[in-house]
Amino acid sequence: MAIGPRPLPSVLLYGLVPIASWCIVRPLLEPLPSIPALYSCIGISIFAFLMTVYLIPALGPAFIKAGLKGHDLLKTYRFEVPIPESMGLVSASVYVLSLICFIPFAFSTPIRAHANVKNAKEGITVVEFPHYQLSVYLSSILGLLIATMLGFLDDVFDIRWRHKLPIPIIASIPLLMVYYAEHGNTNVVVPLPFRFIFGNLINLGPLYYLYMSMLSTFSTNSFNILAGINGSEVSQAIVIALSVILNDLLYLPWPIGFRIPLHLLGNRTELEFGGAWSAGMSYGSRELVERHLFSLYFMLPLVAVCTGFMYHNWYPARAFPGDTLCYMTGMAFSVVGIQAHFSKTLLLFFMPQIFNFLLSCPQLFGLVPCPRHRVPHFNPETNLLSPSTAKFEKPPNKLATLILRLFATLGFVKLTSDSKTGKLTETTNLTILNTFLIVLGDMNEKSLVKTLIGTQIAGSGLAFFIRYALAWLVYDGDRR
Amino acid sequence: MAIGPRPLPSVLLYGLVPIASWCIVRPLLEPLPSIPALYSCIGISIFAFLMTVYLIPALGPAFIKAGLKGHDLLKTYRFEVPIPESMGLVSASVYVLSLICFIPFAFSTPIRAHANVKNAKEGITVVEFPHYQLSVYLSSILGLLIATMLGFLDDVFDIRWRHKLPIPIIASIPLLMVYYAEHGNTNVVVPLPFRFIFGNLINLGPLYYLYMSMLSTFSTNSFNILAGINGSEVSQAIVIALSVILNDLLYLPWPIGFRIPLHLLGNRTELEFGGAWSAGMSYGSRELVERHLFSLYFMLPLVAVCTGFMYHNWYPARAFPGDTLCYMTGMAFSVVGIQAHFSKTLLLFFMPQIFNFLLSCPQLFGLVPCPRHRVPHFNPETNLLSPSTAKFEKPPNKLATLILRLFATLGFVKLTSDSKTGKLTETTNLTILNTFLIVLGDMNEKSLVKTLIGTQIAGSGLAFFIRYALAWLVYDGDRR
Repeated sequence: MAIGPRPLPSVLLYGLVPIASWCIVRPLLEPLPSIPALYSCIGISIFAFLMTVYLIPALGPAFIKAGLKGHDLLKTYRFEVPIPESMGLVSASVYVLSLICFIPFAFSTPIRAHANVKNAKEGITVVEFPHYQLSVYLSSILGLLIATMLGFLDDVFDIRWRHKLPIPIIASIPLLMVYYAEHGNTNVVVPLPFRFIFGNLINLGPLYYLYMSMLSTFSTNSFNILAGINGSEVSQAIVIALSVILNDLLYLPWPIGFRIPLHLLGNRTELEFGGAWSAGMSYGSRELVERHLFSLYFMLPLVAVCTGFMYHNWYPARAFPGDTLCYMTGMAFSVVGIQAHFSKTLLLFFMPQIFNFLLSCPQLFGLVPCPRHRVPHFNPETNLLSPSTAKFEKPPNKLATLILRLFATLGFVKLTSDSKTGKLTETTNLTILNTFLIVLGDMNEKSLVKTLIGTQIAGSGLAFFIRYALAWLVYDGDRR
Repeated sequence: MAIGPRPLPSVLLYGLVPIASWCIVRPLLEPLPSIPALYSCIGISIFAFLMTVYLIPALGPAFIKAGLKGHDLLKTYRFEVPIPESMGLVSASVYVLSLICFIPFAFSTPIRAHANVKNAKEGITVVEFPHYQLSVYLSSILGLLIATMLGFLDDVFDIRWRHKLPIPIIASIPLLMVYYAEHGNTNVVVPLPFRFIFGNLINLGPLYYLYMSMLSTFSTNSFNILAGINGSEVSQAIVIALSVILNDLLYLPWPIGFRIPLHLLGNRTELEFGGAWSAGMSYGSRELVERHLFSLYFMLPLVAVCTGFMYHNWYPARAFPGDTLCYMTGMAFSVVGIQAHFSKTLLLFFMPQIFNFLLSCPQLFGLVPCPRHRVPHFNPETNLLSPSTAKFEKPPNKLATLILRLFATLGFVKLTSDSKTGKLTETTNLTILNTFLIVLGDMNEKSLVKTLIGTQIAGSGLAFFIRYALAWLVYDGDRR
């Protein structure tokens, strides 16, 4: 038995190529659009999507031939059909190459200014090339490529986690170096309730750098532990990327003005957006516009390559992402969070991942036994998934029992006790996927991944609410 | 039968660790050395050497387990013993990680100045962080990492050459972008004999960028086609790297002064070196000193990781480099050639590779049949290598016959003709290794690699002679 590649509608190619080409050519035509590079970015993203969506089925056999294959454990054909593994590498490579090809477009405005200066025959004209922005770009791409490489090496060699833990930290050195070079701000605005202790601002100094390198370690690993069912890794990345894009759009110069009636939510001020050059929520700050453009330039191609990948990874999957995709996407988020200075807002979009990480801690740190795979249990007869379990070889210690009982009370896990001694004998595995199955009952894989996507979207909605409606509870004026 | 890893003298570890640590700590101690980062670079390079030399035997089994293994075709045990392949990946990873860890040291002087400005309470003090240099660093490391990734993917997937040809060009986009951002000079000094046509300077414009991206394509591929015997790939890299280092040292500030009596060679001027701040051949140009320091910072760790690798790759080899090492080293040279602006001098060090490339062209471009392996033929009885051959299925066309007869006249190939028709039936493969065996007679693998190293060293000697003694024949004053 074999499962063929998902068919590709060729109308996709015919329809998208002219649109993408127009987007790339548009910035060369008069009248110049206000942000020419944004057009190029959209054009390159569409091409990146097309490359991914066509390359993945084309390269699948090569991956299987090279031994990069796995079995889909949650299918009836699980032992017969090899599925190409680590195909996130295709997305990651297309992503990095698109970002590199985009560099000249991102700097098209200074390049044009430069060329004009060379032609100027008289007068004093000094145009400084924005070297700083260029190093921001380069360090970001470097970080992404290191994450991709690490993910792929992990797929090929199955590196032990204590060996690979320090590498995201090294990968973040270029990012931090660039942050430092820009007179990086290490001050943190203190939330209102703590101001009587710390004052308005607190300078974290080196701790802030530690925080940023931890951020990249967290974001690269958090997708990796919320994995195992078709489409789960890539759909998280898409929802978060779209949330970041939506957030970025709030800060761009829009030709229209609108306001959100936050007073209905009890806020003291109205949020006013737009007006051509007050530039959305940037209130005329060119720096904020540039940071959010930077973030857009990294997120649009990310959505493109992830969507292209999801087309083949959707239930029933024709391709597996491998660690490569998780590492690459995680690093992409930490890159924009650090470089565009909205790491706190970003973390709000990671709420499901943070919940899953906290839930997993007892298993990750050895308090509770951790089987090799924690994916839900598959019943071939009903085609439904039910929570998978971990058995206690010896009774758990007091701390583990306390935590598990707390989780059980909150409805996150289901425990089985010995009827005589009352000691715990079994627990469901500590992942958000098993929690969904406990709360909502057994369901098939497709419904489970949809539940996960729904949760992620709800989380992003909550994040926006906290960021823009509730932030005044703990912060005043400056809410960057 | 198995071939154990080459034993490592533990005195190596005990002896080198304190030296390396001292080199890293030294720049923190008063009195500050004149180039503090150079000490750190030497220290980091020693650690890089130690990491490589210890990691390669440790990771060998993991590579074999992951299917990255090959057979040493030129040994009596060729079919029995699997040798880990693509182990250049270890060197390349250690190299890139060392370069990243070195970034903060490379910028220690501006960082210190920065910190002092922050403490200054009054007066006007502006210290600009050298963003431009930072982007030079980052783009170089990015180029290296892309080359490493490409090499490793080639090892895992065996990419067809027409698919991988464009990638070094994309990898060079960041380099070219940075070159452009620095108001990159695209003027070329015209050699004296052609000045009556072109004038003193000719502006190549975009052609110069094409030349630079071709340079990276050439240097990444030229090692790859001069490969196949134990130690050949890595020894070429070491000799060229040492030549580049020697050339760099000529431009550094030395506390002594000396002169080379070039008038003995017929030159019109003496070359005067040294004197503390006339800085060797830089004649006080801070820019030249900085460029050659940049080159040193990339070449010292390269020599370190290559030497560590060669220890295990020397006859009889315990580890194979794979395409990864060839791509990484080739890219490293093109990076320093482009960024430190001595690509022409660099090409002089590549003379054996250029010769081998020109010799190979008829086979690379399909004029002459090209077997999968062109390594010399191994005679298990005598343990000697003799030239390998390619048979003509059908007689070669006129152009191919002409070229081959020319090569044969020059002694580069040996041809076999049909005694009746006089048509060519067989030629030795068109590589420099086969040419050595034709000229010098059959020899064992160890002697052949020593011949190759000797040729490479002689080539570098000739390169220095051309660069510093003969350049006045075609160029006047400005010989950068």
